[in-house]
Amino acid sequence: MRLTLYHYWRSSSSWRVRWALAHKAVAHELVAVNLLEGEQRSAEHLSRNPTGFVPSLFIDPPGIHLAESSAIIEWLEETYPSQPLFPAAPLDRARVRQLCQIINAGTQPLQNLSVQRKHSSDPSQQKQWTQHWISVGLNAYEEVCRKTAGRYSFGDRLTAADLFLIPQCYNASRFDVPISQYPNIRRVHENALELESYHDSAPDRFAPAQVAPGSQ
Amino acid sequence: MRLTLYHYWRSSSSWRVRWALAHKAVAHELVAVNLLEGEQRSAEHLSRNPTGFVPSLFIDPPGIHLAESSAIIEWLEETYPSQPLFPAAPLDRARVRQLCQIINAGTQPLQNLSVQRKHSSDPSQQKQWTQHWISVGLNAYEEVCRKTAGRYSFGDRLTAADLFLIPQCYNASRFDVPISQYPNIRRVHENALELESYHDSAPDRFAPAQVAPGSQ
Repeated sequence: MRLTLYHYWRSSSSWRVRWALAHKAVAHELVAVNLLEGEQRSAEHLSRNPTGFVPSLFIDPPGIHLAESSAIIEWLEETYPSQPLFPAAPLDRARVRQLCQIINAGTQPLQNLSVQRKHSSDPSQQKQWTQHWISVGLNAYEEVCRKTAGRYSFGDRLTAADLFLIPQCYNASRFDVPISQYPNIRRVHENALELESYHDSAPDRFAPAQVAPGSQ
Repeated sequence: MRLTLYHYWRSSSSWRVRWALAHKAVAHELVAVNLLEGEQRSAEHLSRNPTGFVPSLFIDPPGIHLAESSAIIEWLEETYPSQPLFPAAPLDRARVRQLCQIINAGTQPLQNLSVQRKHSSDPSQQKQWTQHWISVGLNAYEEVCRKTAGRYSFGDRLTAADLFLIPQCYNASRFDVPISQYPNIRRVHENALELESYHDSAPDRFAPAQVAPGSQ
């Protein structure tokens, strides 16, 4: 089975899937979709994912494009169960999924570029909007993971929840929302920095040559 | 194990979970959280779900509040596997999850009341905003399910995808977005109307006595 991930280096949803692939050491090819140049609205990309978003994973055989990062990560977990990203007990799995969805449904969609632009054409209004929703989302995440976190968001092992949280922290940093105010999130973030799979999947590693890593 | 669902009659995310419980015939109690009166921001409700959203399911023992409708539905599926809401094959399951997330992450969060209000205090601007994002979401859903739908969104059996789609259609109707323009969604909607579990979980059945069913 050949896997091709269509992604964008700085898309937090793309990073989640790159990280899952790195954590599980699953062979794949990467194809960049340049969001700044509008490639996501091309007929070619819309045939991969009608929402126009990245990531999208081409699975061949059977030759199917699968989109939505949480669907892709659940499929990877079921298909490549070693190096699990979910705990074994159903209620533990559910609590990890709850954390994932606080980011996936409750935070990230509201800071999407298309949503920012629909809200306002004024960059400072866009920034305020984005900061607001990132803060709302991370506040809720902090409060839920206060009861579940150890070294990572759920206990002491990396789970799918961390793969959603950490890329969101990267976005928080881009929009000047300090994560230092969230003690559990900050600790998880520091611990994640020690993982090889973090660095193997992080945005700067996939930045186009003409973009200086860390640039806005 | 005793289950208590905190919900609101007209919340589409609440309906998804009421429907899963009805489909699987799982015994539970219902407690209404009145969003119009701001009960979701009470300390009591925030202790159930720090995002302040409904639904939230109290599972006792062990006495844990679980939130996020997709996490709850996955937990119900793992805990009460009869009357399945996901197909058996991993890639089929993944495609159902993709459809769920087009609504859960790509559509519903953008039409939330708090998001509408943050965008604008003008009701007509709120309505335009909401119509826009519902249309974007249903367009993508229609395009993806064109390849997967039979009688329902994925093949001929009800799946979790339908539990996300149909409550979103209800919201589309509230905001005057005609679903007649989406032939597959329209067909799935018509077929869902024939299900007992649809009617057992639908909003009007849970409307407060002082609200006329079907009112805006």
